[in-house]
Amino acid sequence: MEKKYILILKGTILFTPTAGKFEIHPDSYLIAQGGLICGIYKDLPEKYKDLTIEDYGNSLIIPGFVDLHTHAPQFNQIGLGLDYKLLDWLNHYTFQEENKFRQIEYAQKVYEKFADTLVSSGTTRSAIFATIHPKSCQILFEILKKKGLGAYLGKVNMDTKCPDFIKENTQQSLANTEELILAWSDSELVKPIITPRFAPTSTRKLLEGLGKLALKYNLPVQSHLAENPGEIEWVQALFPEHDAYYKVYDHYNLFGQTPTLMAHCIHLTDDEIDILATKKVVPVHCPDSNLNLTSGIMPTRKMLKAGVNIGLGSDIGAGHSLFMPQIIVRAIQLSKIYSLQHEEDAPLTLPEAFYMATKGGGSFFGKVGSFEPGYAADAIVIKNENLPSELSPLEEIQRFIYTGSAQNIAARYTAGKKL
Amino acid sequence: MEKKYILILKGTILFTPTAGKFEIHPDSYLIAQGGLICGIYKDLPEKYKDLTIEDYGNSLIIPGFVDLHTHAPQFNQIGLGLDYKLLDWLNHYTFQEENKFRQIEYAQKVYEKFADTLVSSGTTRSAIFATIHPKSCQILFEILKKKGLGAYLGKVNMDTKCPDFIKENTQQSLANTEELILAWSDSELVKPIITPRFAPTSTRKLLEGLGKLALKYNLPVQSHLAENPGEIEWVQALFPEHDAYYKVYDHYNLFGQTPTLMAHCIHLTDDEIDILATKKVVPVHCPDSNLNLTSGIMPTRKMLKAGVNIGLGSDIGAGHSLFMPQIIVRAIQLSKIYSLQHEEDAPLTLPEAFYMATKGGGSFFGKVGSFEPGYAADAIVIKNENLPSELSPLEEIQRFIYTGSAQNIAARYTAGKKL
Repeated sequence: MEKKYILILKGTILFTPTAGKFEIHPDSYLIAQGGLICGIYKDLPEKYKDLTIEDYGNSLIIPGFVDLHTHAPQFNQIGLGLDYKLLDWLNHYTFQEENKFRQIEYAQKVYEKFADTLVSSGTTRSAIFATIHPKSCQILFEILKKKGLGAYLGKVNMDTKCPDFIKENTQQSLANTEELILAWSDSELVKPIITPRFAPTSTRKLLEGLGKLALKYNLPVQSHLAENPGEIEWVQALFPEHDAYYKVYDHYNLFGQTPTLMAHCIHLTDDEIDILATKKVVPVHCPDSNLNLTSGIMPTRKMLKAGVNIGLGSDIGAGHSLFMPQIIVRAIQLSKIYSLQHEEDAPLTLPEAFYMATKGGGSFFGKVGSFEPGYAADAIVIKNENLPSELSPLEEIQRFIYTGSAQNIAARYTAGKKL
Repeated sequence: MEKKYILILKGTILFTPTAGKFEIHPDSYLIAQGGLICGIYKDLPEKYKDLTIEDYGNSLIIPGFVDLHTHAPQFNQIGLGLDYKLLDWLNHYTFQEENKFRQIEYAQKVYEKFADTLVSSGTTRSAIFATIHPKSCQILFEILKKKGLGAYLGKVNMDTKCPDFIKENTQQSLANTEELILAWSDSELVKPIITPRFAPTSTRKLLEGLGKLALKYNLPVQSHLAENPGEIEWVQALFPEHDAYYKVYDHYNLFGQTPTLMAHCIHLTDDEIDILATKKVVPVHCPDSNLNLTSGIMPTRKMLKAGVNIGLGSDIGAGHSLFMPQIIVRAIQLSKIYSLQHEEDAPLTLPEAFYMATKGGGSFFGKVGSFEPGYAADAIVIKNENLPSELSPLEEIQRFIYTGSAQNIAARYTAGKKL
């Protein structure tokens, strides 16, 4: 991206600088330079008058979506086997499918489709699990870069308590991880993230080594935490020296020592929720996945009250769609069900859940997910053809989030560059 | 439909003659005559050899979907205002929107789009609420007939406890209803159904008159029951002479005296569930609506155990999609959440929820929703392009239900006639 490059988008600008309310600028200009937002103007300032304007009429222009938890190699199994319980589902589908990524031709084919679907869905930033296979992971790095997407991508580490065909040798796992880190640390938009699958499939030696890599290269971390009660008991049995699941990660410098994402976080005590807030660990709410695998409901309102910043994740293939508006709707729906049994916890509103899928989750990438000055110019344009003309911008965003599809997105930009 | 007309579809035939299991006939012929299924054949019988075959290769052919509860006049408000609670939502959107249907030009425009969306979504049969306006209702009858859809359509009756601009005079309401009944009783695919909005917006006189019409013309009935606790208390206050909500309908011959649909049925006692079974009243589960309006979770497994036949409904505009696969998925998801707190009630499986959206709901229309001999030839064809070739038919239906859209439907037939 040239430092001087200026992008001018015209439309109705809508975003959530704070969580509870949409800020709307009808019929305005969104201007970015060198990939960063300069400002929003009702009238085009004189100095830009000779530049090209990408004019989208009165279409909505909103921040690109941020998907903070997804498994790229599970793209081909989306929607399959969801009558199974977690362990049968893993054994019948997930582990078999991930094993195919030892073949780079297969990885190339599936990862291309995965990345194309992210683009079409308007997801401009994501935090992605690959598989244990370094060559396939390298291919996904290259594909994401080629498509112009922003991402944290992790080679999965897994050296115990899983089928032999996808179990790693600990030293090799760490060496392969470090090699990918060195190859991609200087990359602008696609960066590495330390990715132990979760505590049960990690030896202490692996966790120790990964924590050291996170500190040595100052890299973020992603994993899973407290998805279901059986998993929590398993962790307690495997790591009896720690009296809480999160302490396994924490002990090895994988819990807030560097920026950390923890998918699910459904079954946490109030004290553990406070610790998320203190350590600024970001729990990633994956509502479709939590429904499909009968995991439970994350107490989102309780977490917000405790000062936790929540992100949203598609979590394919336990979730069944990469389209973030569907995840926004499901987060709201689940919070409504939760509120029926917890009167003190009001449901999420649309602008609150929208914030999670833009600025809230985006903060993991720095200044991402808003249109305030200095933020990355990640934007998508929503077509408003076929809408009854009397819809207000607020109603248009409601209509798009609840009923839209990738086909309603007219254009996508990451860091000022059109995809 | 000519009595002799023979339809031959070739593909992979998939349906649920019983609730728990898909019956699959790979690469077979589905043959119908005069709109009714004759049989499924692996090899084409000699006598049909000279007839035209609609050959869909190895695409899935499944029964058309049955939507047992939906509000056509709310089509234009889909997805709007769902942060509101029920009463605010009704006052801000629904009543305002329904009032527009006093203009037949508006009705014509919205109802055309509604019916087109039913067709594209593969919903071949539905039970529909119109508004109180007889002329607009007449237009919807005509549009549904023109599109070749099967439907029960009800002019809504509402003569108290609602804004004046959509409140009817009781006698006029009954007279208008009878006029539409007389006009449409002999229609083949689109038929009238008695439709009090719900108990609170009905005077005793109205309910009495509607019950008489149901008996006089042997017409089915549809309304709402036990959607949320506040509504139930309201009914108790309005009808203190009855000690249960359903008894209001029952007293006036609107509860099983003729075939009856009751939307929602979330907050019922065990005894009331048994009464649904005894009276063969069909509760219509509208999971997206129940989530969006924070109504609660229908105890579907408990009802199935009690011998109740459950249908599924989109319930737009409280629900936000007419696409029945989305409703199937949400019914499964909600049953999973319910099972977390009711261990004895296992979640719905995909073939169980699929049955509800085909043969289960279809039984309200007679022999509809299955491919057994004598059933109406309601069928849709699912495109399988872009699928990894190794998917089995069982995986294909999973993939379509969880991730498909109207665009994956290649063809639709109602009673043997292509739409």
